[in-house]
Amino acid sequence: MEGKMKGFAMLKIGETGWIEKDIPECGPMDAICKPIALAPCTSDIHTVWEGAIGERHNMILGHEGCAEIVEVGKLVKDFKPGDKVLVPAITPDWNSLEAQNGYPMHSHGMLAGWKFSNFKDGVFGEYFHVNDPDGNLALLPEGVDPADAVMLSDMVPTGFHGAELADIQYGDSVLVIGIGPVGLMSVAGAALKGASRIYAVGTRPKCIEVAKAYGADTFISYKDGPIADQVLDLTSGKGVDKVILAGGDCDTFIDAVKALKAGGKIGNVNYLGSGDYVRIPREEWGVGMGHKMINGGLMLGGRLRMEKLGSLVATGRLDVSKMITHRFEGFEKIEDALYLMKDKPADLIKPVVVL
Amino acid sequence: MEGKMKGFAMLKIGETGWIEKDIPECGPMDAICKPIALAPCTSDIHTVWEGAIGERHNMILGHEGCAEIVEVGKLVKDFKPGDKVLVPAITPDWNSLEAQNGYPMHSHGMLAGWKFSNFKDGVFGEYFHVNDPDGNLALLPEGVDPADAVMLSDMVPTGFHGAELADIQYGDSVLVIGIGPVGLMSVAGAALKGASRIYAVGTRPKCIEVAKAYGADTFISYKDGPIADQVLDLTSGKGVDKVILAGGDCDTFIDAVKALKAGGKIGNVNYLGSGDYVRIPREEWGVGMGHKMINGGLMLGGRLRMEKLGSLVATGRLDVSKMITHRFEGFEKIEDALYLMKDKPADLIKPVVVL
Amino acid sequence: MEGKMKGFAMLKIGETGWIEKDIPECGPMDAICKPIALAPCTSDIHTVWEGAIGERHNMILGHEGCAEIVEVGKLVKDFKPGDKVLVPAITPDWNSLEAQNGYPMHSHGMLAGWKFSNFKDGVFGEYFHVNDPDGNLALLPEGVDPADAVMLSDMVPTGFHGAELADIQYGDSVLVIGIGPVGLMSVAGAALKGASRIYAVGTRPKCIEVAKAYGADTFISYKDGPIADQVLDLTSGKGVDKVILAGGDCDTFIDAVKALKAGGKIGNVNYLGSGDYVRIPREEWGVGMGHKMINGGLMLGGRLRMEKLGSLVATGRLDVSKMITHRFEGFEKIEDALYLMKDKPADLIKPVVVL
Amino acid sequence: MEGKMKGFAMLKIGETGWIEKDIPECGPMDAICKPIALAPCTSDIHTVWEGAIGERHNMILGHEGCAEIVEVGKLVKDFKPGDKVLVPAITPDWNSLEAQNGYPMHSHGMLAGWKFSNFKDGVFGEYFHVNDPDGNLALLPEGVDPADAVMLSDMVPTGFHGAELADIQYGDSVLVIGIGPVGLMSVAGAALKGASRIYAVGTRPKCIEVAKAYGADTFISYKDGPIADQVLDLTSGKGVDKVILAGGDCDTFIDAVKALKAGGKIGNVNYLGSGDYVRIPREEWGVGMGHKMINGGLMLGGRLRMEKLGSLVATGRLDVSKMITHRFEGFEKIEDALYLMKDKPADLIKPVVVL
Repeated sequence: MEGKMKGFAMLKIGETGWIEKDIPECGPMDAICKPIALAPCTSDIHTVWEGAIGERHNMILGHEGCAEIVEVGKLVKDFKPGDKVLVPAITPDWNSLEAQNGYPMHSHGMLAGWKFSNFKDGVFGEYFHVNDPDGNLALLPEGVDPADAVMLSDMVPTGFHGAELADIQYGDSVLVIGIGPVGLMSVAGAALKGASRIYAVGTRPKCIEVAKAYGADTFISYKDGPIADQVLDLTSGKGVDKVILAGGDCDTFIDAVKALKAGGKIGNVNYLGSGDYVRIPREEWGVGMGHKMINGGLMLGGRLRMEKLGSLVATGRLDVSKMITHRFEGFEKIEDALYLMKDKPADLIKPVVVL
Repeated sequence: MEGKMKGFAMLKIGETGWIEKDIPECGPMDAICKPIALAPCTSDIHTVWEGAIGERHNMILGHEGCAEIVEVGKLVKDFKPGDKVLVPAITPDWNSLEAQNGYPMHSHGMLAGWKFSNFKDGVFGEYFHVNDPDGNLALLPEGVDPADAVMLSDMVPTGFHGAELADIQYGDSVLVIGIGPVGLMSVAGAALKGASRIYAVGTRPKCIEVAKAYGADTFISYKDGPIADQVLDLTSGKGVDKVILAGGDCDTFIDAVKALKAGGKIGNVNYLGSGDYVRIPREEWGVGMGHKMINGGLMLGGRLRMEKLGSLVATGRLDVSKMITHRFEGFEKIEDALYLMKDKPADLIKPVVVL
Repeated sequence: MEGKMKGFAMLKIGETGWIEKDIPECGPMDAICKPIALAPCTSDIHTVWEGAIGERHNMILGHEGCAEIVEVGKLVKDFKPGDKVLVPAITPDWNSLEAQNGYPMHSHGMLAGWKFSNFKDGVFGEYFHVNDPDGNLALLPEGVDPADAVMLSDMVPTGFHGAELADIQYGDSVLVIGIGPVGLMSVAGAALKGASRIYAVGTRPKCIEVAKAYGADTFISYKDGPIADQVLDLTSGKGVDKVILAGGDCDTFIDAVKALKAGGKIGNVNYLGSGDYVRIPREEWGVGMGHKMINGGLMLGGRLRMEKLGSLVATGRLDVSKMITHRFEGFEKIEDALYLMKDKPADLIKPVVVL
Repeated sequence: MEGKMKGFAMLKIGETGWIEKDIPECGPMDAICKPIALAPCTSDIHTVWEGAIGERHNMILGHEGCAEIVEVGKLVKDFKPGDKVLVPAITPDWNSLEAQNGYPMHSHGMLAGWKFSNFKDGVFGEYFHVNDPDGNLALLPEGVDPADAVMLSDMVPTGFHGAELADIQYGDSVLVIGIGPVGLMSVAGAALKGASRIYAVGTRPKCIEVAKAYGADTFISYKDGPIADQVLDLTSGKGVDKVILAGGDCDTFIDAVKALKAGGKIGNVNYLGSGDYVRIPREEWGVGMGHKMINGGLMLGGRLRMEKLGSLVATGRLDVSKMITHRFEGFEKIEDALYLMKDKPADLIKPVVVL
C-alpha cells in the first residue's frame, strides 16, 4: 500500500494535532492494520504533557486498539488481510536474548518491547504498522465487542501482570494500591488468581463501585492516614500476604513494605514518572532479611498473551466493559477522548472510540 | 478427659457398626475435639468395602468434619477449649524432613500425613484426637456455616490441589476428568486460578448442573468415545493447556496425555485404587521429550491451608454449599449418610451431618 | 551463494553415502554456514539404522557441529560472514506460540524445534542452512577449542536439561541412569547445580572413569539386580531426592519411581525409541498421590542457551574434552566417525571430526 | 540435668565477660547440648559493640557451633544423648504459619527463627538449649571435621541463600558484592549453581585468594570508582544476570540495580545495620517496570538444610576449610576468637575454637 493517511499526533511536548503522513511500509515480517476501535491511555497524557519519554515530533499517538489487517509481508504465515485482530501495546522481538530469557517486553533493551508511540508511530492513525504479526497479533475472538477488545491492549495485561508479579495464591489477602483502570484490572486479576480479602486504596466513587464489582472487599483512603497503618489496623497488625502497586509514586513502596508480611511479595505495575529513588524502609524490610520480595515489570505483550486474555473475555470469565465509562464513535473523536483522559472527570474510568 | 465414647466404625473389611471406646488421651502437643458437623467421603467407602488401606479392626471412620475443642495439651499455645475449628483431613508432623522439604502430606512416610481413620481413629466419634493443633487446626471463620466448613476438610483442598499441580495460568484451557465432589472443586479451583475454557468429563445431570455453576463450559461423556478424541475435536487438534484428573483409573492418564499440548501439565488428585501400572502413551508423550509434565499428590493439610481456604468461603469467593445435596441432623445419622454415599443415588453429590 | 556441495547422507533406512546437492538457499532471515568441527550422535544411528523418525531419502545427516558463517539474509542483524559460531541441534521459531509459552523446542509442533537432519538437511554437508541466526547462533567464545564447541550442540544442553527437569537443589542426592555422553553431562549438570551424592548407573570402565571425573560418587550396575533395589539398599530404604534418566527404555521409569522419595522429581532426557507405554508403578507412585513428579523434555536450543553454556566452557567451569575419546581430521572422516558410533567400541564416548 | 555452667556473655552493650548461669532446662521437645567446636560471627560483634539487636544483659553469645547432645525431652524421637550434631544458627518453630508458608526463618515474627544469642542464651556456654531437635539438628556426617562443621551453622547457609535468592542458573554472570566469609560462600554457592563468570567486589588479599579458589574470576575494588560503572565496563555495557549482596550498606543496592540486566535478580544476605531507607534508583530500575527483582532474606535453618549442606561437605563438593584462617583450642579461647573477630586483622577470614 502506498499513499497518505491522517493521524492524531504529538507535535511536540505539550502540543497535539492532526497530521498527514505516508502510510507505513510493510516489510517481509510486518503487517499494516487499520483500527476498528481505539482508546487513549494515561501514558499518552504523560507522553504529551509531561514529556515522560522525552521530546518527540509529529509522532502519532496511541497504543491501545483493535484492528483489521490490510497488508502482510511475505514471511507472515498466520494472518491475512481482512483478519480482525487484538493488538497488544507491547510487541516484542521474540528472537531477542531478552525474550529467550523470559522477558520479551525488554527485547533489545529495557522496556524496548514498547514500540507504538515510543519508537514509531502509534495506533491513532488511519493505518499503523505491526512488527512480527505472527508473534504479536491474535484473532479477535468471535463474539467479543471491539470496544472491549481495546481493553486487552494494555489495561488487562498490565493490571493482571501486577497479580502475577505479586504471585497471588489461593486465599491470599491482597492490598491493591490504586483503582484507576490498571488497578481495577489488578483487583480483577487478584480475584481471578484466588485472592481472598482484597483491600483497595482509592477514593473516587465510580472507581470504588467498579472495584467492588471486580472483587475488592475493603476500601482505604489515603486521606484517612498512612495506608500501611490502616492495613495493619485492619489485619490485627499482621499485614497482608501480597501487595500490588497500580498507583502512587516512589514513596508508595514505603507503605507497601510496611503493610506486608515477612515472606510477602510486592508487584509493581505503576509507571514511576519522577523522583530519583524508590525508598524501601530498612527496618520493616527486615534489615534486608525479611523476604519481602519487590518486583516491578512492564506487561507481557505478544500473541499468546493476547490469545489467553482474549479467551477470558470470550468465555465470560472477565467482563471488561465495566471499565468503559465513555464511548465515542468515529476516528476523529480520538481527540475528544484523549482530552477527556487529560481532564479526567470524576466519573471517568476509560473512554473508547469505535470507528 | 476420661471416660467412654461412641463411634461409628469399620469393624473389619466389609462391615461397619457402632462401637464404644475410651475417649482418646490428650498429650502435651495434642487436642481433643467433639464434632459439630461431619461428612462421609468416598474414601471411607473404599476403606470399608474395598479394603483400600488393608484390614482394620474397630477403627472409627471419617476424616471430614468441623469441631469444637474440648481439651488441649500444655504445649499448645494458640487454641483453647471452646474454640470452634476447621479440621483438615491431613494433619502433618510439621517438623519432619518431608514437611521441611515442602511436602507435609508425606511427613514420616509417603501419604503418612493422613492419620484420621488410617493410623488412628477418625472423626466419626463423640470425641476425636488431633495432633499438633497449633499446626493443624484453624478457627472456624465467623459467619461460615459448619456444614460448609466440612467441605474444607478434604473436598476443597483436594480439588484445588489438582489445579495447583496442573499449574493453571490466566487463560489456560483445562480438561477436568471427573465431576464428583473433588472434580467439582477442581473445576472451581481452575476457574479461581484464571482458566478460560474448562472442559469437564462427566454425565450425571446433577453434577453437570453444579459443574456449570462452578465454571465448566463444555461437557464430555466417556460414552461418546475416547475422551482424548473428543477434546482434540473440540480444540481443532491442538489439545488443552492443562489436565486435572479427579476421576477415572490408571488408564485415564492415556487420555490425559493425548489430550494435552506439548509443554502442558497433568495434575492428578484421584486415588488410584487398583492396577499395577499407570500407563503413559510413549508417542503422544513425545517419545519422552514432549514436556508433558505428570504429577499427582495428596492434598496439603494443616492450619495455614485451612485458614486460606476458609477465607475464600468467608469472603464469598467460593460457595461450597452447591455441593451439599443431602443434609442430616444428629450424630447417629452418620450411618445413614455413609450408606447413602455407598449407594450413590443419581442426585447425590455430598451429604452432610450436622450435630 | 549458488553451486553444488557434497554431504554425507542417509540414502534410505539402513543405507548411508556421500551425495551431491545444491548449496541451500539463504532467505532473508537465514544463514548459510560451513562446518569447522562435527560430531555424529547416537540419534544419527537411530535415524539411519532404526528408522526412528521414519523414512528419509538422501537427507544429509548430523546436528552437532560448530561452523563459520558464509552468508546471511538481509534481515539478519547480529551476525556476518566470517563469524565463527556455536550451532545448537535445536533451532526454534522464536515467535511461535510454543516458544512464547516457554517451550521453544516444540515450536510449531511437539519436538519440531529439531530441524537438522529431520525436516531439512543436517550439518554433515560442506554447507548447511540455519533458520533465524540472530535467535539461534552464538559466537564461538574466544579460546574455546572447536572440538569442544561441538559438545555444546546437543550433549551438554541435553544432559544439563535432565538436571533442570529434575530440579536439582543444594545437597540433593541424585540417581543418574545412563552414563553415555548425555548421561555424563547429566552427572556434570547435577554436580553444577549443587547435588551432593550422585549415584550413576553404568558399567563401561571408560564411562565410569569419566563419570567419576564429572562428579559421580557411586556406581550401580544393572547386572547386580534391579536398580531400584540397589538404590534403596544404598540409602537405607529412603531413596534419592531426584532422578535423571539418560538411558534405558520405557520400563526404566519403574525403577526411577521406586528409587525416588515422595516429593521427588524425575527428569527424562532419554529418547524412548520403542514400546507402547511408559509404565509407572501405581503403588510406589503413591496411588497417584505421592508427588513424584515425572517430566521429560527435548533440550532447549537457541542462542541464549548456547551463549550461557558456551560461557561455562570458556570460564573453565565445565571441561567437555573429557568426553572426546576419538578425534578425526578432515571432512570426509565424518563417515568413519559415524561408523565408529555405530560400532560403539568399549572405549568410545564421543568422536569428533575437525575440518 | 541440673547445676551451674560457665558461658561467655554480653554483659551489656559494649561489654563482655565470663558468667555463671544455671544449666538450661530441657522441656519435652527440647535438647541440651555441649559444644564441640565454636566460632564467633560478625553478628556477635554487632550485637555487643553496636547494640544491633538492642540492649541485653548477661546473655551468653554465639550461634555458630557443632555439639554433642547431653539430654533430650521425652517427645524427641530421632536424637539421643551422645549424638554429635550440626547446629544451625536459625532454629524455627516448624508448625508456625510462617514455616507452613515456606519461611521458617520468620516463624512467629520476622527474623524470629533466630533464637540463639537473641531471644535466649547462645552457644558459647558449657551447655546450650535447642528447641525442637528433631526439626532442627542433624547428625554430624561421618568424616566431617568439627571445625568445618561450624561453618555450616551460618556462613554456608547464609552465603548459599544469596545464590538461591538471586536464582542463579547455568551460565549466568554474577556479581557478588563482599568477600568476607558470607560473600565467599555466596561465590561458592553461585559456582555450585552453575554460574559462569563471577565478578567479586573486595580488596583484602587473603579474601581474594580464597574467593578465587571458590570460583571468582574477576575482582573489583570500590576504590577504583563506582562498582556499577566497573561492571558495565567489564560487560560491554550489558550488566550482569544476577547480583548477590553479601556486604555494603543500604546504598549498595544502587550499584546492584545499575549493574543488573533487565530481567535480573538481586539476592541480599547482608545485614543492613543502619540507615532509614534502602534506595533503588528509579530510572535504572526501569521506572518501576524493568523486572529487576529485589529480595533479601535470612538463611534457612533447620534439620533438612543442615543435612543437605552437610552432605555437600561430606561428599567433598564443598571445602569450607579454606575459610578457616585461625584455629584455637579450648573453650576459654572463645574470648580470644571473639576479640580477633572484633579486631579483624588483614589475614582473618574466620576463626574456630575446638573444644
